[in-house]
Amino acid sequence: MSKYTLGIDYGTLSARTVLMNCEDGSVAASSTKAYPHAVMDRQLPDGTPLGAGWALEDAEDYVLALKETVRNVMRESGVPKEDVIGLSIDFTSCTVVAADEQKRALSSLTQFRPNPHAWVKLWKHHGAQAQADEINELLTRKGLIDDPRYGGAISPELLLPKVLQVLREAPEIYQAAYVFLEAGDWLTWNLTGELKRSGNMAAYKAMWTPEDGYISKDLLLELDPGLDNLIEEKLRGQICPAGGCIGHLTQEWAKELGLMPGIAIGASIIDSHAGMPGSGICRKGQMMLVLGTSSVELLLSDQPYAAHGVVGAVKGAIMPGYYSLEAGIAAIGDMYGWFADGYVPSAYEKEAAQKGQNLHQLLSEKAALLAPGESGLLALDWWNGNKTPYVNGDLSGVLIGLTLQTKPEEIYRALIEATAYGTRMIMEEFMKSGAQVDEVIVSGGIPEKNPLVLRIFTDVLNRPVKISASDQTAALGSAMYAAAAAGKEAGGYESVAEAAQALARLKEEVYLPDAAHAQTYDQLFSLYCELAGLFDPKKTRILSELKAGR
Amino acid sequence: MSKYTLGIDYGTLSARTVLMNCEDGSVAASSTKAYPHAVMDRQLPDGTPLGAGWALEDAEDYVLALKETVRNVMRESGVPKEDVIGLSIDFTSCTVVAADEQKRALSSLTQFRPNPHAWVKLWKHHGAQAQADEINELLTRKGLIDDPRYGGAISPELLLPKVLQVLREAPEIYQAAYVFLEAGDWLTWNLTGELKRSGNMAAYKAMWTPEDGYISKDLLLELDPGLDNLIEEKLRGQICPAGGCIGHLTQEWAKELGLMPGIAIGASIIDSHAGMPGSGICRKGQMMLVLGTSSVELLLSDQPYAAHGVVGAVKGAIMPGYYSLEAGIAAIGDMYGWFADGYVPSAYEKEAAQKGQNLHQLLSEKAALLAPGESGLLALDWWNGNKTPYVNGDLSGVLIGLTLQTKPEEIYRALIEATAYGTRMIMEEFMKSGAQVDEVIVSGGIPEKNPLVLRIFTDVLNRPVKISASDQTAALGSAMYAAAAAGKEAGGYESVAEAAQALARLKEEVYLPDAAHAQTYDQLFSLYCELAGLFDPKKTRILSELKAGR
Repeated sequence: MSKYTLGIDYGTLSARTVLMNCEDGSVAASSTKAYPHAVMDRQLPDGTPLGAGWALEDAEDYVLALKETVRNVMRESGVPKEDVIGLSIDFTSCTVVAADEQKRALSSLTQFRPNPHAWVKLWKHHGAQAQADEINELLTRKGLIDDPRYGGAISPELLLPKVLQVLREAPEIYQAAYVFLEAGDWLTWNLTGELKRSGNMAAYKAMWTPEDGYISKDLLLELDPGLDNLIEEKLRGQICPAGGCIGHLTQEWAKELGLMPGIAIGASIIDSHAGMPGSGICRKGQMMLVLGTSSVELLLSDQPYAAHGVVGAVKGAIMPGYYSLEAGIAAIGDMYGWFADGYVPSAYEKEAAQKGQNLHQLLSEKAALLAPGESGLLALDWWNGNKTPYVNGDLSGVLIGLTLQTKPEEIYRALIEATAYGTRMIMEEFMKSGAQVDEVIVSGGIPEKNPLVLRIFTDVLNRPVKISASDQTAALGSAMYAAAAAGKEAGGYESVAEAAQALARLKEEVYLPDAAHAQTYDQLFSLYCELAGLFDPKKTRILSELKAGR
Repeated sequence: MSKYTLGIDYGTLSARTVLMNCEDGSVAASSTKAYPHAVMDRQLPDGTPLGAGWALEDAEDYVLALKETVRNVMRESGVPKEDVIGLSIDFTSCTVVAADEQKRALSSLTQFRPNPHAWVKLWKHHGAQAQADEINELLTRKGLIDDPRYGGAISPELLLPKVLQVLREAPEIYQAAYVFLEAGDWLTWNLTGELKRSGNMAAYKAMWTPEDGYISKDLLLELDPGLDNLIEEKLRGQICPAGGCIGHLTQEWAKELGLMPGIAIGASIIDSHAGMPGSGICRKGQMMLVLGTSSVELLLSDQPYAAHGVVGAVKGAIMPGYYSLEAGIAAIGDMYGWFADGYVPSAYEKEAAQKGQNLHQLLSEKAALLAPGESGLLALDWWNGNKTPYVNGDLSGVLIGLTLQTKPEEIYRALIEATAYGTRMIMEEFMKSGAQVDEVIVSGGIPEKNPLVLRIFTDVLNRPVKISASDQTAALGSAMYAAAAAGKEAGGYESVAEAAQALARLKEEVYLPDAAHAQTYDQLFSLYCELAGLFDPKKTRILSELKAGR
């Protein structure tokens, strides 16, 4: 009799739960629930307005999604609850809950409800840019900024800027919070009753290392004396390594979800990282590439590396035994969509309608007829800021080579190429750690939708590109983490790598680079690097001044 | 009884003839004829393919337009031919005809018809970039490049690169040509039987000065020994100053056109320069701005000046007694049209249709609601190359500050602003000659169509902007040159300046700068200058490499 595990993937707008067969990796049932409050970026439910760059969520939505999707998959699959041996959660990160000692999000308490700082700060909350600037300034002054744990610059999306923003702008919330913790950790705390934290999230989003723990208290005090109790109190909770069991399901929650009490609950993991085992990455040389609205790149390495937007200083933070280098581009599909939704003339729309295509299909069909370099266009893929190499959210998109003959499909292709160059820049940054990239495994929403994107990425990266067979690699990866948390004896696996190797599937189709295209793209990539260098924020403030003038 | 003159304005796609009343400047009749072959930029009529950047025309089209439009205005106006005292032509320049001794364009001869080099090279023919590069290289090596007659760099649109291209690529055509001459000169040669040349065109497009004539033979020989006979033979013909009478209408042509033989034919003039008297520029401090598909800027100055794409080293080349500083931007309305025609989504098209607007009107209406700087966008107006400051046709358009929130009307406004910044760069270059700019007089197709463009130009230039009352300033200016060629005794004028002062009219409406906008635009203009500096072709070859890769 097969055993099963539950993987729950908490994305930006919805959660998806899969019930995975631990024998063959097949999905017995899956269920998705959108968060009723979605992302709040303009106002709270009561109308309280939010500042520019804010992005909040309601923690109650996560609980609702948990109950509904788990009950759904259990009911739909007909799998007996006795055969479900573990549950693991992946979550967007750093998504921060401020909770009281009774594990309640402060936004659930009447007295704090009108205060924006009582609500969940979503990963893409950019309200703490000033605090990030301040921290970067301090680290630079101390000569620490290029340490691997800081990686040249810290992002406003990390835990410390977000918590510091609360302290500065709503000290009463900072005071009232028993803990600040990742939403994933908040859920596992509730499910197990044990206040432990994901080592994966701590390493990537809280500047934590197994050797030295969090950032030193001296630095915290220099930032703000009010941070005196941050580590011991507000960040309390043992750190649990990736792939580990964080605790066991309580009686109360077992009843609530229709599961057996005591089953293994895995340490929560960052959603994109869960895609690593989920898409079958289990050895060195395989670069994972998640292509969706944004992108994530991950590579296993024997050496730590952190610089220019690459984070990877903590061994075992995703896969035991390896350093996992991570980077990302803040807009991929979002950039393509920006153009297809807003800049395609009606003649193209008519043509697409006649052919029964959507605009992406039509633009891709036309763009596929162009040779690399033929348009003379070159773009910097910074429509939503730049992480590698500059870690700077104030940077913005650049498009050069425009002429009166430039056509929409040429711009569309230039945007795709720009994201491929951005990805290559990340790949080359990864390789500075000494790691090789032998092949690229792609997952996310784009590969299904757009073969041209894969074609261009293959030629620009000059690597074979394979595609994950699953369209729910994160949820599946979580189920693999759950199988590792449950352990081999219970019907799971020794390790998450073992689970990945046994269970993940790739599509048969492999994209291989075209040598001539790859050569042209080598030259164009060097122009891309030169263009990026022209807008190096250390050399010119032109992009940030334009943004500031808005 | 009033006397009349004919002004014929040869544009890129059509010719327009006006019959002007010399007493009050009113137009008795006007007529336009489009060239049947239009611009040939892909192939000859027989299918012979053309290279990238080529732009040819058929000289026979000019003759057709001459006959048809002159007969039309004479017939429609009912003015007796005895009252028509002169005719003058303005023409795009440098538009080069290769002709035999019988005044026939070589493309009219069967044996040369399949050879692209036998046809008229239109002003915007960019096939001679390699030859321009070569000439610039030689002038730089000789330390002459910054001489006023070369102005820092010579454009591929000038006469010498175009003729050198013929010598190099089609020596049989070079050999067969009795002369190479401006299309305007070719027409006056036909009309008068006298092979003379426009001093205006020679000064601006053939590096000719009254003091030293053409470029020295030593330099020519160093370029190519085949240029040995260039000046004496291929460029033969006396140079005739602007505003002068080049000869008199032949019996044969008088009959053909229905005019009196012997009337004065003015020296032909560059089309945009004819707009100077035509739009009423007759004193220092008035900057002329022709805003059409491209733009021309002109300013009368007491001092010669030539650098960074500004040409103005020959006294009296447009108006007797003054240096006329000239510059231009190769795409203005073309850039706006590129965007409106190709990048506006159907939702906007529907909205425009509902409002009974065209897309420019809708985009302008939306763009007018934006404050200066609000979009965070900045563009370099180089969609068709850059003249000031870099005189480089290989440069191309740049657009920065793009985000996922960027809207079409923001890009549209950024393109308008870019052309205004480009114009301001030219104005500031003009002022280096010591000249003042007190007001700007605008003509061309744009002012009628788009008040937002005038609003933005007014604020960016920070000068009062007035608008020419005529929409045919070039043809009208030509008629004024014809009146000066005919002379006061015949019923014309002493000089073209006197004609302009007496006859040109401005609209009553004056645009005045908004102080707050002007201040913001000062800051944005300095960012524009910084951005232009980033792409200085002396510092980076990125744009030319992209273009070369096409």
